[in-house]
Amino acid sequence: MGKELHKKLPKATAKRLPLYLRYLNMLNESGIGRIKSKDFAQITQIPSATIRRDFSYVGELGRSGYGYDVPYLVEVFTDLLESDQKKRIALIGFGNLGKALANNNFRRNENLQIVCVFDNDPNLIGKTIAGYYVHGMDELKQVIEEEQITIAISTVPSQYSQNAIDQIVDAGITAILNFAPDRVKVPKRIHIQYIDLTTELQTLIFFDSMMNQKEKVKAE
Amino acid sequence: MGKELHKKLPKATAKRLPLYLRYLNMLNESGIGRIKSKDFAQITQIPSATIRRDFSYVGELGRSGYGYDVPYLVEVFTDLLESDQKKRIALIGFGNLGKALANNNFRRNENLQIVCVFDNDPNLIGKTIAGYYVHGMDELKQVIEEEQITIAISTVPSQYSQNAIDQIVDAGITAILNFAPDRVKVPKRIHIQYIDLTTELQTLIFFDSMMNQKEKVKAE
Repeated sequence: MGKELHKKLPKATAKRLPLYLRYLNMLNESGIGRIKSKDFAQITQIPSATIRRDFSYVGELGRSGYGYDVPYLVEVFTDLLESDQKKRIALIGFGNLGKALANNNFRRNENLQIVCVFDNDPNLIGKTIAGYYVHGMDELKQVIEEEQITIAISTVPSQYSQNAIDQIVDAGITAILNFAPDRVKVPKRIHIQYIDLTTELQTLIFFDSMMNQKEKVKAE
Repeated sequence: MGKELHKKLPKATAKRLPLYLRYLNMLNESGIGRIKSKDFAQITQIPSATIRRDFSYVGELGRSGYGYDVPYLVEVFTDLLESDQKKRIALIGFGNLGKALANNNFRRNENLQIVCVFDNDPNLIGKTIAGYYVHGMDELKQVIEEEQITIAISTVPSQYSQNAIDQIVDAGITAILNFAPDRVKVPKRIHIQYIDLTTELQTLIFFDSMMNQKEKVKAE
């Protein structure tokens, strides 16, 4: 079933699944058995038409006046996202951002877990910091192979990013979340996703000033 | 001109503008005066058809065999994004993530600048840490008004997020980048953008396991 669905699922829909699942889990845990797309739109701040279209891809059409079956959707989305499977993650780069990720994040999904940490700073290597033993980059391949890890987060700055990513790929990682936004070269089989905070902020400012301009036009 | 363009520009296109501008600036600084969509696609890892469509919205159609005029696009996008204007930003929450943002980020655009920092930790308030004086949350409204800041980044954890955002909005901020992914309530005039690292990671893992399944199917 999974494979059939995956093929048809548009990328934009797939990107919303983790968000849907998070809120559906909350509803489910609160004992809410069904929800209307309009109410779910309120919670997620995603338009209800988008929700209905997205849900229709997984075969849940909802019933008029009844809404969607929450436990069923939780089951389907959990299955699709495999989020009940433990995912062990390597963290490359243990500066402020790396520490923030190790300490603060992914708490909402206890199946996502940073299990090993690497840096190339001689002052950090071999020490245990905030509960994490810091490995040197020369140990990357060996540790990744031993631990059978396929997912990595890189917080290595842009100027060293390509080099770090090359080592990460060479170690056998197939999925990379990269906090250095400059595009790096990876083989086709590797999945890489960029977090680009400058771009996010610029986009936000762009939409904000657009809106402020409209307000001004209205007021004139 | 700006207003006319803004209206027509699809949100998905607008979101790509900061990325385009970043690479166009790099090309421009390297003295590259024109670029073909195919080559620009290589650099940005955005499909060339998307690039051509996006550029057509700003009236740049490119010339077959010649490509796009880099300095012209830089000028148009800079104007659209107002990225040559200084944007002063307030940072709320000065834990690991806040420190990482203050120290490491937005360096690529020197017009984006965190100018004041707030936290509610009595151990931090009144101290200067990593070059930033930490204000208490009770000073938020006064400082924001004095400094005439309209943009804030919040790294306040989910459980305190709504309360912090209420204070931020009350202080006069109109654009918020929120690192707590749970949706908060804000007045309609406020622009809020969420950074949801857990969801990003789950999406990445989802696409990665999709691809691995396909590989397996091929191999069978």
